[in-house]
Parts: sequence; C-alpha cells; structure tokens
Amino acid sequence: MSQGNANGVEVLLFDVFGTVVDWRTSLQRWFQRFGRENKLQADWPALVDDWRAAYQPSMEQVRQGEQPYVTLDVLHRESLDALLATYGLGGMLETDRTQMARAWRWLDPWPDTIAGLTRLKRKYVIGTLSNGGLGLLVDMAKYAGLPWDVVLSADVFQHYKPDPAVYLGAAELLARPTSALMLVAAHNYDLAAARSHGYRTAFVARPTEYGPRQKKDFGPEDAWDYVASSLEELAEKLGT
Amino acid sequence: MSQGNANGVEVLLFDVFGTVVDWRTSLQRWFQRFGRENKLQADWPALVDDWRAAYQPSMEQVRQGEQPYVTLDVLHRESLDALLATYGLGGMLETDRTQMARAWRWLDPWPDTIAGLTRLKRKYVIGTLSNGGLGLLVDMAKYAGLPWDVVLSADVFQHYKPDPAVYLGAAELLARPTSALMLVAAHNYDLAAARSHGYRTAFVARPTEYGPRQKKDFGPEDAWDYVASSLEELAEKLGT
Repeated sequence: MSQGNANGVEVLLFDVFGTVVDWRTSLQRWFQRFGRENKLQADWPALVDDWRAAYQPSMEQVRQGEQPYVTLDVLHRESLDALLATYGLGGMLETDRTQMARAWRWLDPWPDTIAGLTRLKRKYVIGTLSNGGLGLLVDMAKYAGLPWDVVLSADVFQHYKPDPAVYLGAAELLARPTSALMLVAAHNYDLAAARSHGYRTAFVARPTEYGPRQKKDFGPEDAWDYVASSLEELAEKLGT
Repeated sequence: MSQGNANGVEVLLFDVFGTVVDWRTSLQRWFQRFGRENKLQADWPALVDDWRAAYQPSMEQVRQGEQPYVTLDVLHRESLDALLATYGLGGMLETDRTQMARAWRWLDPWPDTIAGLTRLKRKYVIGTLSNGGLGLLVDMAKYAGLPWDVVLSADVFQHYKPDPAVYLGAAELLARPTSALMLVAAHNYDLAAARSHGYRTAFVARPTEYGPRQKKDFGPEDAWDYVASSLEELAEKLGT
C-alpha cells in the first residue's frame, strides 16, 4: 500500500476543540435551547466562556501532579459545579448537571471540517490527539460525522497535552516514528510541543474560536511546516 | 442523539483476526506472491498455519508475566524467526523478515464483513477489541476498508485478551458501563471472558478460519445473546 506523501508523513493527528469543532457557538446554542426548554434564564454565552476559561487551569492541576489523572468529563463537571452558583443556578438538579457536562460531546464542526477531513483521509490516516476523553470524542464523531480512522486522547495516556507522554505515546501506539506524524492544530503551544518531539506541524487559523475574548493564536507564531485558514486549504496544500 | 437499541447496547466491539478478516487465506496468498517474486520455494500454507499456532503460546508468556508486555508485531516477528530455519529459510534477510512480519496488516475481510459493518455502523458505535497492535489495526483498516469508529487493542491496555484489563479498560475509555458494550467474536473463549465482565455477546461462526486444522469454535458453546453465520446476518438480527 502507498500512503503518505513525499515528506514521509503518513498520519495526521488533529487537535479537536477549536481546530475541528466550533465549541463556543455550539455550546451557546445548546445552552440557549436548554434554557428555553427548562424555562431558565442566564447569561449563557458568558457561562460558556467562563467554563472554557476553567479548562486549562483544571488540566494544569493534573499536569503538575496536584490531582491524579481524571478524564476531561470529570474536570468539566467540577468546573461546571463551581460556576453554576455564580450564575444563580446553584439549585440545578444532578440530572441536569450531568446533561450539561455532556454537552461538550454535541459540538458542530467548522464549515470546512468535513470536506477537509474527507479529502485528507484519502491519502493519510487521520485521527484525533485531543485532551477530550475517548468516549467524548467517539460520541462527538458520531454526532458530527467526523470520519476518523483512529481516536487517540489524553485518557489513553493518562496525561494531558502538552505533556510529552501524549505525543510520544501516540507514535508508539501507531507503530511509527514521530517524523511520520503531523499534528494539525489551531494552537501554537500544541504545535510547539509536538515539534519538539519530532512531529511535523500544520497550523490552521481559527481566529473566532474564543469570540471577543480571543487574545492569541490569530496566526502562526513560528515557522510551522504548513499554515492554512481551513482544513480544505490544508487538504489542497497537501495535494489531496 | 439516539444510539443503540432497546437492550441498551451502544457499542459493538469486534475481535478481528478470524472474526472480521480471513487471516489464513490472505497470508497464504501473500506468501505465495512473495515466494514467486523472490524465487523462493517453501510450503507456505504450512508455514502460515505453524505461525498462527505460535500465536496463543507467545501471548501466554506475556499473560503469565514471563515476558513484559510487547506488542503483537514483536511476538509475530519472534515466532517467525524461530520458524524460518525449520522451513529452510534461515538465510532470509532482515528486510524480508520485516516485510513478512508486517503481512499481518494486509488481511482481507470475509465476504460479508464490509456490508455487515456498514449496516451495523448506522446504529452502533463499531470498534475493534483485538490482540493486534493499534498500528497494525489502523493499517489493516485502511487496506481492507474497515469503517471503524474507534480502534482499541491490547497495546492500549498493555494486556492481551482474555486478561480482564482489556475488557474493563475498553469500557472505561468509552465512558460506558460494560452492559452497554457487546463483543462480537468467532471464538467462544473471548465471549466467555467478555460476558464475565458484563458485556453482551454475539457469536459469529467462522468454521473455515483454521482450515483443516480447525478443532473448535464451529458453533456457539454457550447461550450467547446473538448467534449468526455472518456479520450481515448479525446486522439483520440487530435490526440495522
């Protein structure tokens, strides 16, 4: 079988939240519908932004060894519980909290995602390399129609990106040197970590990911191997 | 999203060698072509059968703790090296040995496999739960067109089936109770282990898997939840 291209890359691994799916708009819509159906009022867009703002700090506790590894479902639920009181929703029932924490599964792809992945899948193995849990990623793929060949996630390695165990563990499981892997991400820190372990790198700009709060990652901050403004443009640049 | 059926099953996990792909015929063909191209004569069908016969004993050493976990690629290579001398092929070059050991990736599906999986995938998450390495399974899926939603394998858990860590680890990664999972396999021992951990079970008969050497697994040896003679029949029985 012939796979990959002249530069030796055989597998494209994708960051997911922000790179492949538009978590912010999707969650805003989900919460607005949830509010209507349950006759609840709150500043849902602000709640979504605050929830996401708790994401990196919650993983950092695990990275620093202050908390044993737990999957992102658990971290999402912990940070949600802390937020709800602030938003006047402290009386929310357990079943509703569970449903809210699972909303991170029902995220819509960016408009270019499915077409881009479908093209890239013709020539490459395509997979996730996400801090989302494997169960979350599998459910999201079914919901959003993401055609992954393989789903890899932090909980396979019991470490969160950018811990080296994630990037090195993926190469070991895929039975390939890191030079045969390319990380595709909208976040410069993730690409920097991947490249430090020998990955090739592709930056895909998602300048509206965080809405008005976005402060970084408007463009490439280093000389990544590829830079594109969509997954379709990346497919074009990779000749697929 | 609504997934799964009335009995609560959401994910179908498949044994691969023998259940999904016809390793014996595929490897016989591969070796006959290899022999022609390299002007080598040997009893290739016997070599294939002997190689497979070394499969369970090689994993048993790992299961018993006599050897640390190594991926199936390594076990396949070790047992191949031991066999080649017996077959008058002791002078085989390193590059040829590597190519031969990788032949376990290029296995063809049974005639009903693709149609069956495609139907089952409409209603269920479908994935592997194989003793093959993850890299092997991903390469095989690309080669054979197996439309997995998720690829899980022994090396994710560093244990070989039927060690409990494989069945329990898959449920944990998929964020589901084992009762939401069904193992589909052509081997009674695998189904017995899965059921002991709470899985639902489906037996698919593959009475020609081992050719004339086949001694067991001609039919179900216990009251499995489903019994079928092909993956298409299983799809029918599961209402997909």
